Amino acid sequence: MTKQGKFIVIEGLEGAGKSTAMATVQRWLEKHGHQVVCTREPGGTPLAEQLRTLVKHADPAEQIAAETELLLMYAARVQLLRNVIEPALAAGQCILADRHDLSSRAYQGGGRQLNEQLINDLRKALLGNTQPDLTLYLDIDPAIGLSRAAHRGQLDRIEQEQLAFFERTRAKYLAIAHSEPGIVIIDAAQSIEQVATALENALAEVML
Amino acid sequence: MTKQGKFIVIEGLEGAGKSTAMATVQRWLEKHGHQVVCTREPGGTPLAEQLRTLVKHADPAEQIAAETELLLMYAARVQLLRNVIEPALAAGQCILADRHDLSSRAYQGGGRQLNEQLINDLRKALLGNTQPDLTLYLDIDPAIGLSRAAHRGQLDRIEQEQLAFFERTRAKYLAIAHSEPGIVIIDAAQSIEQVATALENALAEVML
Repeated sequence: MTKQGKFIVIEGLEGAGKSTAMATVQRWLEKHGHQVVCTREPGGTPLAEQLRTLVKHADPAEQIAAETELLLMYAARVQLLRNVIEPALAAGQCILADRHDLSSRAYQGGGRQLNEQLINDLRKALLGNTQPDLTLYLDIDPAIGLSRAAHRGQLDRIEQEQLAFFERTRAKYLAIAHSEPGIVIIDAAQSIEQVATALENALAEVML
Repeated sequence: MTKQGKFIVIEGLEGAGKSTAMATVQRWLEKHGHQVVCTREPGGTPLAEQLRTLVKHADPAEQIAAETELLLMYAARVQLLRNVIEPALAAGQCILADRHDLSSRAYQGGGRQLNEQLINDLRKALLGNTQPDLTLYLDIDPAIGLSRAAHRGQLDRIEQEQLAFFERTRAKYLAIAHSEPGIVIIDAAQSIEQVATALENALAEVML
């Protein structure tokens, strides 16, 4: 399928401010004439939303194997790609994604320390040429992010992990952001206004 | 984890007689002093059973991508492996499995004609050394198997595929059974008694 629209991804730990950033970026894109389709992962189709519930709110009596979690994330992702992201991009619409593939590399690869070879095999086989044009990574100290997230209410299964898990996840986010093109690191400890300005500057550079 | 118990798998198309074969093999194993844990795939843990329901009875309004189906099958499989099969084998119990990895190779690889490289990558990363000691493949003409399965009641999403899908699946089962060790082909068009005798002969050869 030919990709024509732009594919923008927001990434970051819990409490980094992804929801606020989604709203800022959506406003900017629409102001600049783009038709925007918002997605979230895991989720975004009826089946993928059911997988989201399974992976985030599984019965605590059953231990979920790290590989099971990884495969459920990619199952939800490929379902969203085939049914929503690829058709929208082919129709010239702009995809604005609350998490995408980088989350699995950071959380399952970094946080859970899973076999990177398997993650790379999955990416190669499933994602194809549908790569984001711009990834905006909201970087936050996990201790700050988690205390923000905890204020929002009950934490889900993954949010209940120990601090070390999120420190590994952040380290993997940063390592990838520093070594691959197309990922802009935004300091999410700044004020909401400063974060918004940083997002808009990054968008202007890629989209104008 | 050290594997000590035996791992026996029953495979075949819908209507090949897997349930009857499971009962025959379980009786034989117990008669010969084995403690038997029966599993089915996809399924066999609370999460894996939920994945079974999603993959077999998904809302027909949503097209399930072939890759999504494959990943859900492996997610259910690895969950069952880690939480049930590997601990039971390590404890010296015998696993009797209604379907295992060969089903994905036949149905998703043969029937859906999915990327074999991805299937092989998944197998290599996830299955490790936990390989069946014996796979009993019940071979049946899909036209006969499907008419038997239809008599049992409503067909699920996969059972509703066209005949050509099951012919490709059967061809893949046979190709693998002819080229790899540890798989015995049983002619499932025989009488129930003849099938039972063939199963018992295959078990005696491996287990006694």
